[in-house]
Amino acid sequence: MKKPTLCVGLVCVDVVAETEGFPVEDTDQRIPDLSYRRGGNASNSSTVLAQLGMKSEFLGTLTNSMQLDFIREDFSKHCVTIEQCPIFPVCEFPTSIVIISTINGTRTILHHPKNLPELDIQHFSNLDLTNYSWIHFEGRSTNIDNIKQMIRTVRERLEYMKISVEIEKARPVLDELLPLADVVFVSKEYAYFSGFRTMKEAVEGFLDVTKPGTIVVCAWGSEGAAAGQNGTVVSQSACPPVQIVDTLGAGDTFNAAFIYSQVNLWDWEKGLEFACQIAGNKIGQKGFLGIGRFKHPVEALLKSQQQRR
Amino acid sequence: MKKPTLCVGLVCVDVVAETEGFPVEDTDQRIPDLSYRRGGNASNSSTVLAQLGMKSEFLGTLTNSMQLDFIREDFSKHCVTIEQCPIFPVCEFPTSIVIISTINGTRTILHHPKNLPELDIQHFSNLDLTNYSWIHFEGRSTNIDNIKQMIRTVRERLEYMKISVEIEKARPVLDELLPLADVVFVSKEYAYFSGFRTMKEAVEGFLDVTKPGTIVVCAWGSEGAAAGQNGTVVSQSACPPVQIVDTLGAGDTFNAAFIYSQVNLWDWEKGLEFACQIAGNKIGQKGFLGIGRFKHPVEALLKSQQQRR
Repeated sequence: MKKPTLCVGLVCVDVVAETEGFPVEDTDQRIPDLSYRRGGNASNSSTVLAQLGMKSEFLGTLTNSMQLDFIREDFSKHCVTIEQCPIFPVCEFPTSIVIISTINGTRTILHHPKNLPELDIQHFSNLDLTNYSWIHFEGRSTNIDNIKQMIRTVRERLEYMKISVEIEKARPVLDELLPLADVVFVSKEYAYFSGFRTMKEAVEGFLDVTKPGTIVVCAWGSEGAAAGQNGTVVSQSACPPVQIVDTLGAGDTFNAAFIYSQVNLWDWEKGLEFACQIAGNKIGQKGFLGIGRFKHPVEALLKSQQQRR
Repeated sequence: MKKPTLCVGLVCVDVVAETEGFPVEDTDQRIPDLSYRRGGNASNSSTVLAQLGMKSEFLGTLTNSMQLDFIREDFSKHCVTIEQCPIFPVCEFPTSIVIISTINGTRTILHHPKNLPELDIQHFSNLDLTNYSWIHFEGRSTNIDNIKQMIRTVRERLEYMKISVEIEKARPVLDELLPLADVVFVSKEYAYFSGFRTMKEAVEGFLDVTKPGTIVVCAWGSEGAAAGQNGTVVSQSACPPVQIVDTLGAGDTFNAAFIYSQVNLWDWEKGLEFACQIAGNKIGQKGFLGIGRFKHPVEALLKSQQQRR
């Protein structure tokens, strides 16, 4: 079995309210469901990697607040290890309120970072990096210098290690991460912010500012996703489920499935197809538990196609 | 010192988001503040009674979930005892998401009852009722039979005990509580639902269906409040603070302040004035802690007025 993947970034608490329509201001209503979920991009991606059958580890700051047991148990339930995470006393987890309207599938997010310090280079330096097969970084504008130092540390210590970064938010400083990784995930939001209007245009454009050999991947919601390397760009349509149940974390799922494909040394075109499939499947279920059950048919299909070529 | 007051009803978790305007559907934003608060009408009223200087006890169901320590510590911080509360295993606290728009002071509430059982007559029967100076019940349509039985138990065991009930939500079954208490708090919502269009009309109307001697009290938001007994009805204008900071729990504060006045054997007209003052002061501060600091000047003023008569 492969060594574990490591996802570095944020874990937060999502308070998820399901409503039958977006609420009207100044009203008081009973809603069909309300749940606490562990959220955060890197936290979600580590979860999906574990559910796809990888050994998966998450690295991010934790705190000894009322939700610590919940966060720990939820990582454990999804088979993600968190042994290296520093635990701060007397802080609170970053928290998002997520309002999901079941009528039209919109999700409205209200986020507060609270007071939990982000991971710094000291926490990262303690790791034995030879333990991992892949290291994925969630690009965070509020912690950019530390993230760049962490990537530098990996490059210095282990030339062969594959690194991916995710650039999601429209923050100029995140540009600095583009030339540093082997796989770069750029969001539609960030692509728009950078002046691109289609996913292919975005992949082509970002390939110009990454180092040779970098794979650029860009998911574009219901239109699908595109990826490219060394001047070749391919797009893939989305694989929507019969019924949209829960879109929260679909992008993180997509990224994890693509990483899975690369850890297993598939062609990136196949990885793109697989990532669209698994992200589509995720949207058809609540949360991430058991998302791996979809892996085997998809994987078998993709492999048989690959053999036929 | 008086014996403790007992407030019987719900405690829940409020996840309170402060936004700079009501959120637009399908957006993702950082918000200025997000906090967890202990909420629930009886829970809030017990808090205000304690902060006004009464010995105060709360009775409602608790559960051994991740928020139990938070709930316990928050009661303790506000000097409310909860020793008699039954604790259920493997449930979750009822939870509300409250979106407060700081631009216009609106509060939008999304509530989910979760799976915590409500208090039943067995839990109540264990109490030594002679320990209390006043018993207040939060009228809950989902638990009406138990509440009626609890009131009956008080009446059977202790003829002298004063009982108040709060009727807030527009649910027909709550009508059954009207004839059972010595003090009845009716909300503007319930009054409207019952066909009344002004607070005086509501108090007059509800006096007709309560037993002789009952005091009916009805708060009417920024217009103030009215109260009445044996055919006499008095209204009082609101006492808004210089700046509206936080309206959450203002009604529960009003009720607690009125109960405080009655435990201390003031005229109910003075109680009405005091309740409007303390509720107004509450709106000018976040939460309930230290609301008692307003009590002494108000109390002194009311007493001096009373002596002048």
